[in-house]
This record gives sequence, structure tokens and C-alpha cells, in this order.
Amino acid sequence: MEDATVSIRDRGFMYGDGVFETLRAYGGEVFRWKAHADRLADSAAAIKLEHGLSQPTLKNRIDETLAANELEEAYIKLSITRGVQPGKLNPDPAVDPTVVVQTSPLPRGGINADPVWDDPATLQTVKTRRIPDRALPSHAKTHNYLNGILARTELRVSDADEAVMLDTNGQLAEGATGNIFFVDGDALCTPTLDGPVLPGITRSTVLDIAADEGIPVREDSFDVNALREAEEAFVTNTTWEIRPVNTVDGIHIGRGPLTTLLQQAFRNRIEQQYYETTGETSHEN
Amino acid sequence: MEDATVSIRDRGFMYGDGVFETLRAYGGEVFRWKAHADRLADSAAAIKLEHGLSQPTLKNRIDETLAANELEEAYIKLSITRGVQPGKLNPDPAVDPTVVVQTSPLPRGGINADPVWDDPATLQTVKTRRIPDRALPSHAKTHNYLNGILARTELRVSDADEAVMLDTNGQLAEGATGNIFFVDGDALCTPTLDGPVLPGITRSTVLDIAADEGIPVREDSFDVNALREAEEAFVTNTTWEIRPVNTVDGIHIGRGPLTTLLQQAFRNRIEQQYYETTGETSHEN
Repeated sequence: MEDATVSIRDRGFMYGDGVFETLRAYGGEVFRWKAHADRLADSAAAIKLEHGLSQPTLKNRIDETLAANELEEAYIKLSITRGVQPGKLNPDPAVDPTVVVQTSPLPRGGINADPVWDDPATLQTVKTRRIPDRALPSHAKTHNYLNGILARTELRVSDADEAVMLDTNGQLAEGATGNIFFVDGDALCTPTLDGPVLPGITRSTVLDIAADEGIPVREDSFDVNALREAEEAFVTNTTWEIRPVNTVDGIHIGRGPLTTLLQQAFRNRIEQQYYETTGETSHEN
Repeated sequence: MEDATVSIRDRGFMYGDGVFETLRAYGGEVFRWKAHADRLADSAAAIKLEHGLSQPTLKNRIDETLAANELEEAYIKLSITRGVQPGKLNPDPAVDPTVVVQTSPLPRGGINADPVWDDPATLQTVKTRRIPDRALPSHAKTHNYLNGILARTELRVSDADEAVMLDTNGQLAEGATGNIFFVDGDALCTPTLDGPVLPGITRSTVLDIAADEGIPVREDSFDVNALREAEEAFVTNTTWEIRPVNTVDGIHIGRGPLTTLLQQAFRNRIEQQYYETTGETSHEN
């Protein structure tokens, strides 16, 4: 990874003109590859990037990178940019894409695994608002990531480690790098994808588990006070999986029974993958 | 330029986490360097990038690049990114910046120069809205340029070559790569910097000339119809200088006497620079 470079003329460098996915491999196999590959296709379509690479080709690049780095438990970042083009700002429809796969080791996941985060999340509402859909499609995961970076730099004055970002109407959107869930009464609540919210893969897994377990779910537009006054809250992304929230704007929330139940069920699904791909059962059982 | 690369771990590549200036050299000297250097400092401050490089150091990098490429009449792009950092999304305040200077030849400017554009601009209003200030500061010129790219890709279905972008309230903002001016009655009109509008260096030169020449100026919030129904219109950026507008959304505008006067005055200022830096007078005189 230290020696890997791209041209200074790569549109990924000049303009952030590229899309990416963050993935996790458990037991050598990417978790929910198809869902990630489909979202990557949606991101590319949103910025009109016709890279011409099939999902099996991309999967192969990931597998080769994992093998070259001798990794089975890994963080993976897969990027596709519009590459080097002769013109100026206007993108040429004919693309010779740049594909970059970065990977780094993670501990084993599944039942009784150690989380990759040190502590539950401390959240802080920030002033930087999520970019509205009409300016940049919120379902596209692109290399234009300054919006989230500005949100995170606002946290320098507090002890918080994740930002709560609102939309331009002041309604709850998401974190800088993850989706937000909270428990209000008996319902599991999360901001609707009608707002500027990335359709997280872990978000969809959690909603899937909730449906399986008969947990009532409310995808809606919420005020930030609904989060601050919640009984439980957690943030999700592919690396963190389900990370409980300790405080929001200094108000204590803490983990609760529903968060624990969802974490267990999520880890069971990962354990299932270990079993399917390696025949191995949990290292704890 | 063909061999110049950056690390795939450079935050400029991963997140578009960098700032830039587009500059022009006439007679070997950067035009309005101080104004560009100050705006670059504002851009860096807006994304909390403390790169530690002085303006003379940056100027020196440009001069060295021009000399190495044996260029006196040139397009220059100066970028500073947050470089490679160990962490994840959160930027480390301690920065080892990446500085990139790209340059390419242009024809001589000044009196009777050939413009770098082939034809007057054809403008088309697009659906992609300018990112609001509260999501990304509009006075910062950053490597997050997908918003303008999406606007330009909308032009694929028309013959237009520059987008007219509106703000999220539907008011006139700017082009994908330049500021918009138009003439209404006797006043020179341009969208106010209170909206999501980049404070263009050429924009400020034009306003300066207008003040010198006693031309009434209105910086305000405008409906797109004000542009469509204008008597004259032009777009400005450092490379184009002052580029007349031929049509807006298919409606003919065309150049007029005020545009010609401003172009003449602008070229006089450039000619002044040739005289000051080289002692040379216009190649036409």
C-alpha cells in the first residue's frame, strides 16, 4: 500500500470524481458483497460513471488483494474513479477507470468478537449540514467527502467522536460515517432514506433483523430531540457494525436490551458466514 | 506531468480533502497572484487545513514549475491537500501537505489576443443545485468538485457548454466553473456573494474595472429570467477571462457594447503587466 500511487491528473485526485465502498471480510469472504456491489453500481450511475467493470471482476480484484496481503479478517476500501482524461472539467463518457483496492487487518468477527471500536460512541450535533440531494445525490458514496470531514473537525472542541448531522431543514440525517438508530418506546427508529441519508448496508441488515425478530420499526423524519431523549441509540457502518451510543450532546443514553439483541443477531449472521465459507464454527463454541 | 503521482492514501485522492487555485501567467508572471494566494488561504481556513506554507514559498513552487516547463504564457493549477495521514476520516491537525503544481501552455494574452475559448458561451440552466454554504463553504475552492461535474454532465443532451446553476432557493448562483454577469438597463448585474457563489478573482477584477469606469453595478439575488432576458451577458474565470454569452436556455443574448468595453479594459490591465514585467509593449503596437 505504501508504494501505490495514482496520477495527479486522475480525476479522483483532481475532483474527487470517483465512487467507493467500504467492506469487511470475515473468514476470507466479503460480507454482503452483492449489496455492496449493487450500491457501488448505484453510486456510479448517480455520477454517470460508466466504468464497464463487472461485479465478478471487481470481486476478483478484492480477492486478489486479500490474497496478496494474506488477509482473511480485513477492512477493504474499493474505489473506482473516472481515471485520467484529456479534457478539462467535462467528463468524457469513454472512461478508462482507475480501480484502487486498499485493505488492512481486523480482528475476527462473529460471536463474542471484540468490537473494532474502543468505546461506545459519544455523539455531538454539528453545524455542518448534510448536502441536499439536489446538489449531490445522497445515495451515492463518492470521493467528495469534505462534508463529513468538516463535521468531524467541529468535534475538536468537544470529547465527542462522531457527528450528528442534520439536513438543511434541521431534521436528523446521519453521522459523518454511519447511520443513526434509536429506540423510542418499543419502536426502533431511524431517519428515512427520503432525507439526505446514505442507504447503509449495515442499516439494511439491522432493518432485516428487526423484521425477522418482529421488532416494530419507524423510518421517518425526526427532530434531534427524539435522539437526545431516546432510551437507547446506536450507530452503524460496515466497519463498526452496531456501535452503542453513550451520550448525545452530553446527554447520557447508554446501551439497552434492544441494542444487545440486535448485536447478537448481527453477529450470528456473520458467524453463519464463517460456517458457510470455512466450515469452521465459532472460535468460542 | 505524465509521471507525477500521489499516494492512493493521500487525502486529496481519498476524500477530495484539498484546496486549489487556477491561475494564469502572462509574460512569465502570475496575474493577480496576491488575490489568488489570499483566496487559497481562505479556502484552506474554511476546511481547517493548516499547511504551514507561506505565500512566497508557494509562489516559488509555481515559478520553478514554469521555468522547468519553459513556459511564460501558461495555465497553472496549484493544489494543496492534507497529504497522507495515519488515521481514518478525522483529519490530524498536524499536516504534511501535498503540493501539486500543474501547468500547460496558453497563447499570449493582452491587447488583440486570441481568446482561449473557441466561441461565445451557450448556457443551459441545470437541475443540479449549488451546494448550500452550510454544507460546504462556497468561498472555498476545494477538490470536492462533483457538484460542478454533475451540472456539466446534464449538458450532454443539449448543445450548451456551460451550466447555469441555481441555489437551493431557485435563485441564480453561478456557472460550473465561472461567475455570471449580465446587463439589465444600464447596470452590470451579478449574483451577490451572500449566495453560494465563489468569489472569483476575475469577477473582482471586472467589478474593479466597472468602478473605475463609472458603470453602475448591482450585486443582488436574481431570478434566472433576469439572465434570460438580459441585453448582454458574459461568464468569467481566470482561464476564460471575460467570455460573452451567446444563448441562455436557447434564448439569444449575444455580446454588446458593455461587454466589449470591459474586455478591452481587462486586456489593458494584462498588457500593463507585460509592460511592467518585461518592459515589452504589446506585440500589436
